[in-house]
Amino acid sequence: MTRFFVTPEEMQPDFIVLMGENAKHAKVLRLKNGEEVLVCDGQGRECLCAVSDVSEGQISLVVRRQQESASEAAVRVSVYMAFPKGDKLEHVIQKATELGAAEIVAFPSARCVSRPDEKSLKKKVERWQKIASSAAEQSGRGVIPEVIVLSSYGEALKRAAQADKAILFYENEQAVTLRMSLETGAYRTVSLMTGPEGGLEPGEVEKARQAGLDICTLGKRILRCETAPLCALSAVMYHIGEF
Amino acid sequence: MTRFFVTPEEMQPDFIVLMGENAKHAKVLRLKNGEEVLVCDGQGRECLCAVSDVSEGQISLVVRRQQESASEAAVRVSVYMAFPKGDKLEHVIQKATELGAAEIVAFPSARCVSRPDEKSLKKKVERWQKIASSAAEQSGRGVIPEVIVLSSYGEALKRAAQADKAILFYENEQAVTLRMSLETGAYRTVSLMTGPEGGLEPGEVEKARQAGLDICTLGKRILRCETAPLCALSAVMYHIGEF
Repeated sequence: MTRFFVTPEEMQPDFIVLMGENAKHAKVLRLKNGEEVLVCDGQGRECLCAVSDVSEGQISLVVRRQQESASEAAVRVSVYMAFPKGDKLEHVIQKATELGAAEIVAFPSARCVSRPDEKSLKKKVERWQKIASSAAEQSGRGVIPEVIVLSSYGEALKRAAQADKAILFYENEQAVTLRMSLETGAYRTVSLMTGPEGGLEPGEVEKARQAGLDICTLGKRILRCETAPLCALSAVMYHIGEF
Repeated sequence: MTRFFVTPEEMQPDFIVLMGENAKHAKVLRLKNGEEVLVCDGQGRECLCAVSDVSEGQISLVVRRQQESASEAAVRVSVYMAFPKGDKLEHVIQKATELGAAEIVAFPSARCVSRPDEKSLKKKVERWQKIASSAAEQSGRGVIPEVIVLSSYGEALKRAAQADKAILFYENEQAVTLRMSLETGAYRTVSLMTGPEGGLEPGEVEKARQAGLDICTLGKRILRCETAPLCALSAVMYHIGEF
């Protein structure tokens, strides 16, 4: 079923009007009176609606049923990624959204080759947020993951450590596996943190340990910086019983 | 440590000579006498070597130790992917190699929008195989996954079904999870099969069931055709204890 995201304010109990981009999208799909669509507020609430009127630039819907989104994971997983080169962050935002991440947090670390400058950042975050919205729509998410940019590694550690379980993946760690960490304790929120192309510095890993993060391996093969977060996220979703 | 792939014939017990692309790569790295490198035959055997001579166009190595590659998974996982649009297959070949796939098999299915024509296929397979080799080198694999192209869906089913465990992922399957399949029986070889952008047709799924494949879900969210195989592969590697 087609899925539209509206703002929480547009989400009304009896009638909903799709405007702007949503109305354009509905026009492309040639929605007809009586057809059912899902309207989501991007925060986990959904309405099953029927099209009641199609006009130029707006589509009116009658709400048939309100429900909690059924496509969100039981555990809230945040993906923390050091700024990578090129358009890899866009790739990870799209894929992590499909895979069920609750938020994607980008941060600088010592060996980051590129990081967006203050001036271009606002536009970039807007574009990244759009990628997340569009991937959420396509994959049938009930929640649009928020894309967050932090200005220091320390800030990222502090924020990541607030989750019930926080894990940093480090290619030189050999003993502690992701499974060992996931099988320890109970948790409803998880942070998964990975480094940039050149890896994290030993001092940065030590800081993470001091901040309370588990330092884990992702196996014997070296994963690229854009592969590691998605591999870890897939494994966590599998571990918690999503598939 | 730097890793070079040579042909099984070039893999000699006492002395090894790097030529061609390998010699060029070694020159870029400015290898010096006495430096240690790993030489792999791409089939799981490795030699720890020391550089003994650096000349124009060839690097001579002394073999210090032969060993089985330690970076291969205990279970041989084959990724079967219906031909996707654009360069998505290249993306999946690169990532599946990092994640430890034993081979990547591309096949046509009813809703495949694009499939390479006979004429361009040979060149494409060569390029795909190069992508696998280069990803194997970078991720520290001991084996270069073979890229295989099949000419029919039936052939793909028949080949996939020869593994100890063969799984097809289908977005309309809701009851049977990947975990249920992986927790059943013993296996040393696994086939993971996924459809193209438009999904598999119900008739194709039925054929897979008849061929003996388990039909499984990858969860409540719809994954893109290039995300599904990598998500499944990550989960299988996690399940068998790789990380």
